[in-house]
Amino acid sequence: MAYTAIDLIEIKRDGGALSADAIEWLIASYTDGSIPDYQMSAMAMAIYFNGMSAGELAAWTKAMLHSGDVMDFSDLPAAKVDKHSTGGVGDKISIPLAPLVAACGVYVPMMSGRGLGHTGGTLDKLESIPGFVTRLDKYRFREILTKHGLVLAGQSETLAPADHKLYALRDASGTVPSIPLISSSIMSKKLAEGLDGLLLDIKTGTGALIKDLDRSRELAGTMVGIGTSYGVNTVAYITSMDQPLGYEVGNANEIEESIAVLRGDGPDDVTELTMLFGEAMLDLSGVDGGRSRLTRAIESGAALDKFIEVTIAQGGDPEVIDDPSLLARAPHEEIITAPSDGYVTRCDALTIGAASVRLGAGREHKGDKIDPGVGITLRAKLGDHVATGDPLAVVRYSDATRMEAQRDNLASAWVISEKPPVIGPLVIERIQSPTI
Amino acid sequence: MAYTAIDLIEIKRDGGALSADAIEWLIASYTDGSIPDYQMSAMAMAIYFNGMSAGELAAWTKAMLHSGDVMDFSDLPAAKVDKHSTGGVGDKISIPLAPLVAACGVYVPMMSGRGLGHTGGTLDKLESIPGFVTRLDKYRFREILTKHGLVLAGQSETLAPADHKLYALRDASGTVPSIPLISSSIMSKKLAEGLDGLLLDIKTGTGALIKDLDRSRELAGTMVGIGTSYGVNTVAYITSMDQPLGYEVGNANEIEESIAVLRGDGPDDVTELTMLFGEAMLDLSGVDGGRSRLTRAIESGAALDKFIEVTIAQGGDPEVIDDPSLLARAPHEEIITAPSDGYVTRCDALTIGAASVRLGAGREHKGDKIDPGVGITLRAKLGDHVATGDPLAVVRYSDATRMEAQRDNLASAWVISEKPPVIGPLVIERIQSPTI
Repeated sequence: MAYTAIDLIEIKRDGGALSADAIEWLIASYTDGSIPDYQMSAMAMAIYFNGMSAGELAAWTKAMLHSGDVMDFSDLPAAKVDKHSTGGVGDKISIPLAPLVAACGVYVPMMSGRGLGHTGGTLDKLESIPGFVTRLDKYRFREILTKHGLVLAGQSETLAPADHKLYALRDASGTVPSIPLISSSIMSKKLAEGLDGLLLDIKTGTGALIKDLDRSRELAGTMVGIGTSYGVNTVAYITSMDQPLGYEVGNANEIEESIAVLRGDGPDDVTELTMLFGEAMLDLSGVDGGRSRLTRAIESGAALDKFIEVTIAQGGDPEVIDDPSLLARAPHEEIITAPSDGYVTRCDALTIGAASVRLGAGREHKGDKIDPGVGITLRAKLGDHVATGDPLAVVRYSDATRMEAQRDNLASAWVISEKPPVIGPLVIERIQSPTI
Repeated sequence: MAYTAIDLIEIKRDGGALSADAIEWLIASYTDGSIPDYQMSAMAMAIYFNGMSAGELAAWTKAMLHSGDVMDFSDLPAAKVDKHSTGGVGDKISIPLAPLVAACGVYVPMMSGRGLGHTGGTLDKLESIPGFVTRLDKYRFREILTKHGLVLAGQSETLAPADHKLYALRDASGTVPSIPLISSSIMSKKLAEGLDGLLLDIKTGTGALIKDLDRSRELAGTMVGIGTSYGVNTVAYITSMDQPLGYEVGNANEIEESIAVLRGDGPDDVTELTMLFGEAMLDLSGVDGGRSRLTRAIESGAALDKFIEVTIAQGGDPEVIDDPSLLARAPHEEIITAPSDGYVTRCDALTIGAASVRLGAGREHKGDKIDPGVGITLRAKLGDHVATGDPLAVVRYSDATRMEAQRDNLASAWVISEKPPVIGPLVIERIQSPTI
């Protein structure tokens, strides 16, 4: 059947549904350049307004995932499970979670991203371990996974190239925040990893990509639907991103906090999410033992050993894991203090994340170099009582001009009030495939 | 103020209004190529969904009209009025109307278009007069207008170049049928003509660009609003385009029917619209006398003389006006006959227009050459009673293969039923500037 891009745009514009064949043709033609950007951006905007049905989404995701390599780890003797977070501030969960779950016998072929906007990226954090290589070709990726049950790498460029091209176009054409486009973008890459199960952490709140709970629910449901339609058991948790996770926001300092979790002395919130997600990933893998098995892996040191093992396999210096004080640390320190007595009623993830990026812990422009030693250590979070002059945060920075520019903005992240705040739950909802 | 295209797309996508400054920047940047097509097509799709406020539309139209030459005929000693039709089948009204109104002392700087889709174009029809030149530069355009009070030309490429570029993009990106985009496209060109008044004929029904009456009303109101905001007295008529206007559909044969109107023996519907629009254009110009003045211009031969005068000025052969049998006529003729006795309850403009185009009276592809002698003469229209075997139409064609391919399709335009149809009015509604 012969299609034209204009006909398909008009169908979508007018609220109709595209056939699976038409979607396959559209994605293939866009990837090979025979459909120009100006037609695809109009299509993306029409999708922004009119959405996609479950059937269209499944076809769209499938077409994108088949635009490149599809991994097959079916020869490995246990289940393959990955985790994806929509991104938050201080969200280092993947770093303790992956070795913990791998230490329990699950294969974790983890592909992560870099910092985006005000949020940090797992790859950037891992690279603050000297020598740690996250760019692996598919042969090396398989080799490390097979041998260690775990690999922590960047998205391969040969996976879902249609998504690479479409994502750049969406970014430049105001069509990023579309739930079907976000969902298919993430899922096309994840489903190309050859997984048996997938755990999704959908952040909601001021520091999240999607700030509204209803839309977060819609995103979670949509992604779980795509995973299910593709035969991958998928569980999504909607979790709060109003304040940063843990006490560390940055890169090297987030590695240090992750190591603490693997040693059993991490902050409550990070530990809680790590254990909850670990339990779900064991479930998805059909591995028995649940939370007590995870606890044993931490107490026995097996989880930390797994992290050391994969660090060595990926060229990283294991000494910094033994002694995190060897990690990079920016030369200057400044303390942000409480302007009054009272309870912390706001500790805004977006403001803190954006300040951290601008201080050098993230990229303001594509290609910027990250300063791994820059970071913010929170000293007061939601509900904490502080007295005037008490530290709210310790900022480690390299560039005094940038610190000057960020000081007031960063301090505005905290609001101190007389009455304690009502704090919502960290874990808001669990959404899963009907088949699990 | 510095803008980015993405910010403006997002504002429009999210239902906000763009400032006049932002719109001016957007149109200028698109015209000079600094905003790429893929951003403008996303913007056009966002406008398709979220529309534009009256203020945005005025700014958008103004920015497009100022992207090129703006004519100024304020030195001419009488009002300048043009007419625009959204396009129909058999719609030759401009051809008798322009000389008729000019013969009454109004300046008519008429810029027309070519056939589009299943509809014919005034320029294509005029060019069936041997030698008639419709492509005039602005100096020649002014010279003819000044001397004869009338000029019948194509859209100058130096008028509203932003619209030329945007129209081509809309055509290729599924964003044509947006009322604000259609309105601003038409009005940016018309308002660059230096007019005092503008008459709009908004076609509605199966043969029209916009088939739905409510949307036709919206289009009419929007265009009148733009004209008014620009200080040009604007009147719109919504008229029926369910069946073709008059009895002739094609090019040379439509010239012949137009001449008949100027001689006072044209078909009722074409004559009625010509007189109605002529009266409105005299009104817009502040010229007294109304319909009786128009009637005198026809009866005295002044209107026909004006057509001959402008034909000579534009290089055309005036003999064909004296003797229309000299006009091109395709070599073959075939009669479409009634399959049964009864009343014509359907005489579908879209079907007849599309068949006429495919027989060679229009272009199926850009650059196709028009066959001026090809045409369809209707012999039975809505409400007529026919007996089996009576002619419904006479088709003049050059290419037997094309005739073969169109025969059944063309015949399907007529439906014959036992009971006579209820025929709606030709003129449905008048919409005008509140200031008139």
